Amino acid sequence: MKLLFDELKDLFKTKLIKYYFSDNNSEILAEIFTDNTFAGVESHGINRFPFFIQCIENGSVKVDTNPSQTHSFGAFERWDGNYGAGPLNALKMTDRGIELAKQYGIGCVALKNSNHWMRPGYFGRHTADKGFILICWTNTIPNLPPWGAKEPKSGNNPLVIAIPRKGGNVVLDMAMSQFSYGKMLNFEGEEKKLPYPGGFDNEGNLTDDPAKIIASQRPLPIGYWKGASLSLALDIIAALLSGGRATKDLSESEGEKGPSQVFIVINPNLFSNELENDELINEIVSYFKSAEVIDKTTNIYYPGEQVLNNKKKNIKEGIEVNDKIFLKVKEL
Amino acid sequence: MKLLFDELKDLFKTKLIKYYFSDNNSEILAEIFTDNTFAGVESHGINRFPFFIQCIENGSVKVDTNPSQTHSFGAFERWDGNYGAGPLNALKMTDRGIELAKQYGIGCVALKNSNHWMRPGYFGRHTADKGFILICWTNTIPNLPPWGAKEPKSGNNPLVIAIPRKGGNVVLDMAMSQFSYGKMLNFEGEEKKLPYPGGFDNEGNLTDDPAKIIASQRPLPIGYWKGASLSLALDIIAALLSGGRATKDLSESEGEKGPSQVFIVINPNLFSNELENDELINEIVSYFKSAEVIDKTTNIYYPGEQVLNNKKKNIKEGIEVNDKIFLKVKEL
Repeated sequence: MKLLFDELKDLFKTKLIKYYFSDNNSEILAEIFTDNTFAGVESHGINRFPFFIQCIENGSVKVDTNPSQTHSFGAFERWDGNYGAGPLNALKMTDRGIELAKQYGIGCVALKNSNHWMRPGYFGRHTADKGFILICWTNTIPNLPPWGAKEPKSGNNPLVIAIPRKGGNVVLDMAMSQFSYGKMLNFEGEEKKLPYPGGFDNEGNLTDDPAKIIASQRPLPIGYWKGASLSLALDIIAALLSGGRATKDLSESEGEKGPSQVFIVINPNLFSNELENDELINEIVSYFKSAEVIDKTTNIYYPGEQVLNNKKKNIKEGIEVNDKIFLKVKEL
Repeated sequence: MKLLFDELKDLFKTKLIKYYFSDNNSEILAEIFTDNTFAGVESHGINRFPFFIQCIENGSVKVDTNPSQTHSFGAFERWDGNYGAGPLNALKMTDRGIELAKQYGIGCVALKNSNHWMRPGYFGRHTADKGFILICWTNTIPNLPPWGAKEPKSGNNPLVIAIPRKGGNVVLDMAMSQFSYGKMLNFEGEEKKLPYPGGFDNEGNLTDDPAKIIASQRPLPIGYWKGASLSLALDIIAALLSGGRATKDLSESEGEKGPSQVFIVINPNLFSNELENDELINEIVSYFKSAEVIDKTTNIYYPGEQVLNNKKKNIKEGIEVNDKIFLKVKEL
């Protein structure tokens, strides 16, 4: 089934309105789920949509609540997400961070009691499109073992760093696990090995076999002990600044209800203007890309470049959507 | 040669005064070089001291200059390091960030024209000891290949995240390369393999042989493409916010003159008190450590725990220092 951007967005919007979201919030959520799909991150786009609606139905995601500010001190604020839709909450906190950065140069918003924010790169792009830098992260259910352990008692805690640039924002969007379970399931389904070792098997050996890693629940943290440490640090700061849940408190339910998130926004255009900044970033990216490649078929990408390419291509040509999932969404 | 903390510190201080640092700055620098040594990071302590003095002599590190503020907007400031000693500049910027965080809840200081800051975990501990969170990083000379490249055109850009806790600060101090060249040289010297693959050989195969990685100049970024992307993002932000040099501009000299650095400080005690915060962190760390270990000889550490253990042990027992290096320092 091939769909254009607006066709998929309209479908999402209709369903969101049916499930009691306001017209405005339905519009925003439909845009996010469609954008995630067209960015090539179907796992947090169309593939996740039925589960999102299920969370509405079972009450773990509240419809048409709003996040509320609970504490404020200068450029640092604490908000309560009131268990509203994760992407709506995150977008509002991003915008609040931008307001703080306009006023103080930098702003920090810590959010508790939210819900899964889907693809955080969306908020990175949103911030960068407005000319600001975003550093944000969330904690998650325990899905990554501490270094030296076989039991997942840390989160993969995705981190986004987004930098505005006219020629294409630089948007890093990465979890602390080397490969997501979604990606490993895809490789397993296609009976393929991972391109690099992605975890340990039950015997404790590094392996590129996704089935063995899924069975052991021992995905590899990025940089071995380094990613495991970064994961813990991000979890502590998110819980500490927001006064909300840490990974240890998050239920192991797929719904991941009530994570804590941090949004740090910086204004890079205060002491140098956008043109100068763009020129600087272009030079840095050109230098990075000028490195001699391993072989002629290899490309060097800046963070976010491939997502941008996916989106451009998919918007132009329409996106091929799995028939079963499309039907599932239609029948909601 | 076994030395107590104060013996080594006195030696450093005498030499620093001889090389024209003020008594006060000599005291601070001697403390940092000694602390780094006793923390078990000799590569940025005593082993580096002779090279630091060499940088004074050849003028790449200026004695008794001070960093100067060039721009200020609310909680975000730009400073010029004026090519002073990296550790002194970084400590001052950390303290300036703390002042901003006291006033605004969060503060950001971007520094250009500094010098190598040695072990950034020191500044993390310093900030955490005062009750604040520090997120800071530096860019470096090109020493890491972009993903897909064989040529180092990115930096290993060390990142520190420090969180205050009475029972032991949580201090992550990590570069974007899996193993530093210093560590690889140590393994090579002892004719040992790395514990995990740490880079590519000249044929492009992942290898745990340090000699092959040193020869190929292709150390592994943490998390493969993820660390390479994080490295680029940190470099761009450091150059952008400070108005200073990017990795592309940093000479390949060992002196690494003029890097750009970012210091973000957050006050975690505004909306919850230190006791509550300590309790929360203790719970998170306990949960993390409660994960079932691979085998009974394995320990799970929180970030910074091993450095703290090293320091306690070394302060109590004195530290064993390489005779040749000790003589080299004495003869300066």
